[in-house]
Amino acid sequence: MERKEISNAVIKRLPRYHRYLGELMESGVERISSNDLSEKMNVTASQIRQDLNNFGGFGQQGYGYNVEYLYNEIAKILGIDRQNNMIIIGGGNFGQALTNYSNFERRGFMIQALFDVSHERIGKSVRGIRTLDMKDLEEFLSGCHIDIAVLTVPKNSAQEVADRLIACGIKAIWNFAHLDLKVPDDVVVENVHLSESLMQLSYRISEKRDKEGSGQNS
Amino acid sequence: MERKEISNAVIKRLPRYHRYLGELMESGVERISSNDLSEKMNVTASQIRQDLNNFGGFGQQGYGYNVEYLYNEIAKILGIDRQNNMIIIGGGNFGQALTNYSNFERRGFMIQALFDVSHERIGKSVRGIRTLDMKDLEEFLSGCHIDIAVLTVPKNSAQEVADRLIACGIKAIWNFAHLDLKVPDDVVVENVHLSESLMQLSYRISEKRDKEGSGQNS
Repeated sequence: MERKEISNAVIKRLPRYHRYLGELMESGVERISSNDLSEKMNVTASQIRQDLNNFGGFGQQGYGYNVEYLYNEIAKILGIDRQNNMIIIGGGNFGQALTNYSNFERRGFMIQALFDVSHERIGKSVRGIRTLDMKDLEEFLSGCHIDIAVLTVPKNSAQEVADRLIACGIKAIWNFAHLDLKVPDDVVVENVHLSESLMQLSYRISEKRDKEGSGQNS
Repeated sequence: MERKEISNAVIKRLPRYHRYLGELMESGVERISSNDLSEKMNVTASQIRQDLNNFGGFGQQGYGYNVEYLYNEIAKILGIDRQNNMIIIGGGNFGQALTNYSNFERRGFMIQALFDVSHERIGKSVRGIRTLDMKDLEEFLSGCHIDIAVLTVPKNSAQEVADRLIACGIKAIWNFAHLDLKVPDDVVVENVHLSESLMQLSYRISEKRDKEGSGQNS
């Protein structure tokens, strides 16, 4: 499939379309108009049409969308129609929480191993997934195709670990460490900076407080 | 402070400015030009100036920014110059991981209690923070000012829990449940949808694979 450049905003909305279509399928809906989908998702119908037109449309004027077909097509666009193998670096609370989150598997993201430096954790299993010694990272990666490495290590070791992963050929990093990784152009990074998300919420709270304080109730 | 409407994109960048300024302070830098800050952060200098001008500027032409002053001003804008009290609903792996993450406290986000429905968890403490029975949520909230409720409950109970929180006067929800909460206009919600973040990464991987497949190496 040839792709044109798609804006970040569209890419961010695709998983949400996928989620809503999945829910519609579960409740037995076979066909939906962009207007009805728009109302459900709180996005304008023209936005939905525009977003989907980036990938060739999928709807027939006046007939709406076939829910299952659109769901599967969006899955293909998102690359979740195939298995993605993952490893998690950092077997602390956060790494364990991610390992225990079985929803990822349902979308084809399979965790193959956890890695840690702590002797208390090495050798233990979380939901059947082994915790291996960080020392053995290179050996493990030489024998196993991994699509995504998840980084839940402390900030001060994150770049060093990323460098090791990249040297082993890892091309995608899901980064929970609170720094911006330096990576070559052919490596993709998706950041989850929880502190920053919390600060955005705090901004919204302050903004509301100020508005209420100055009598402009929103 | 009166505020004008600030775009989401700007609000998303503010915590990142705050983080970089904090790192500069730690390494003893007192003053920085927007050009140097721009190079460090991989954002254009004009973007930085534009973003900060939304809040009145803070720089003097030709003199750059006073790092500590700008750091403190951005903290005020983000509302992290004061204490924000939080409760976490859902004491599973994820709720525990968040409770164990001491970085939040350093920014004034204080977790006052965890809530759960599981009798195995109720009564236990995580880092000195008690796990209380969900039954006692209303009573707890009637005696204690909480700014932010963190939702790490399963998707199918999230809306019901949100409704209870809102009935008790909670005005801000940090939502990790994988659904879009329905809330009144005066309640702010910040979502962390991990599956969607992972799908965005998967999209990037597919996009790259397709490009390579069609011979247009990026």
